[in-house]
Amino acid sequence: MKDFKETTLADIERLGPMEIEKKSFELITQEGGSRIPGDERAMIIKRVIHTTADFDYIENLYFSPGAVEKALKALESGAWIVTDTTMALSGINKKSLQKAGGEARCFIGDEDVAQKAKELGVTRASVCVDKAADIKQPLIYAVGNAPTALVRLYEKIREGTIKPELIIGVPVGFVNVEASKELIMQTEVPCIVARGRKGGSNVAAAICNALLYMLDGSRK
Amino acid sequence: MKDFKETTLADIERLGPMEIEKKSFELITQEGGSRIPGDERAMIIKRVIHTTADFDYIENLYFSPGAVEKALKALESGAWIVTDTTMALSGINKKSLQKAGGEARCFIGDEDVAQKAKELGVTRASVCVDKAADIKQPLIYAVGNAPTALVRLYEKIREGTIKPELIIGVPVGFVNVEASKELIMQTEVPCIVARGRKGGSNVAAAICNALLYMLDGSRK
Repeated sequence: MKDFKETTLADIERLGPMEIEKKSFELITQEGGSRIPGDERAMIIKRVIHTTADFDYIENLYFSPGAVEKALKALESGAWIVTDTTMALSGINKKSLQKAGGEARCFIGDEDVAQKAKELGVTRASVCVDKAADIKQPLIYAVGNAPTALVRLYEKIREGTIKPELIIGVPVGFVNVEASKELIMQTEVPCIVARGRKGGSNVAAAICNALLYMLDGSRK
Repeated sequence: MKDFKETTLADIERLGPMEIEKKSFELITQEGGSRIPGDERAMIIKRVIHTTADFDYIENLYFSPGAVEKALKALESGAWIVTDTTMALSGINKKSLQKAGGEARCFIGDEDVAQKAKELGVTRASVCVDKAADIKQPLIYAVGNAPTALVRLYEKIREGTIKPELIIGVPVGFVNVEASKELIMQTEVPCIVARGRKGGSNVAAAICNALLYMLDGSRK
């Protein structure tokens, strides 16, 4: 075991959180090298790596054409973000979102959602999509956990009963997850998707925050 | 692009969340094979993989001797869990924790913490450790984000001013993170640590939940 004791205590005291973030992004840029695309996707990919320490996301993250630009426009016009988990909700920088005029919501714990899910014999995540469809503001739907949320989004997009400005489709898992992501990529709705099994509520929040920071220019 | 359409919609409707979890754990067990140890660490490793889809955690997760057994005893005796992020707090199954007699806390958003951090010129995560030291119950400290929380825990353990039953040391990142984890492994406090850069609030919550589910036998 290496002895980090002396250097660590001194080093950590010296660096503030923003300095640590800056240095982290430099390391990610350096290690990612030319694998990281040189366009507007870069800041999203890097923030996801910053959140996971997993460079697989360079290859995993799929962006539909113009997705980032469209997402930024939506946020600029006051889009709300709806998440499928309270963890993703918790990870979103609400100050940055409010500065842009938006709000964040998660309906998964709502009593009416639980009741309707029971009545219909579907998941609460699926009912949350129905509830989100009633929101009048432009909508970004961020899914970090539930493939059934993506499937319900797919169904409602096909029916014409929901039209999000962006879907962040990054559920993690081993069953139905990959298939649900592929479904979303078949729609005309702008999307950012983590192809394959990986993803998570932390990844969903990181993508939201990357977009918000690109918008307000506050952080890389 | 594969066409998942037909199979997906039918399959996803058929499986409930608990069935999906069961099938996921079967897949993880199968793919992990003999890399996953055949003892009490297995359920924690598998739940972390379930949360990240990342089999690297088989090798990354370090358990100090008897850590799982000691953690279960602590939870059984009503230990509280303190996290460094609201995301980790949000991911912990509070119902299971309350059933065991414990509660979960996160002080990172507290006004007094922000003020003290400013006064002392240290991180809020570091001040949160000081605040947690005042809790009278046995304590599990779960760190998914802030290396400075681990450093402060290390300092206070050495001073004899905090003595957690378990430290879950799984911050993610590129700067100071690995060193802070190595520090914790040098103490006598039982710990579960994700060596290297990987980890996160989701991983911290998954480890807490794995312990809780082992305790109440509700889920694998």
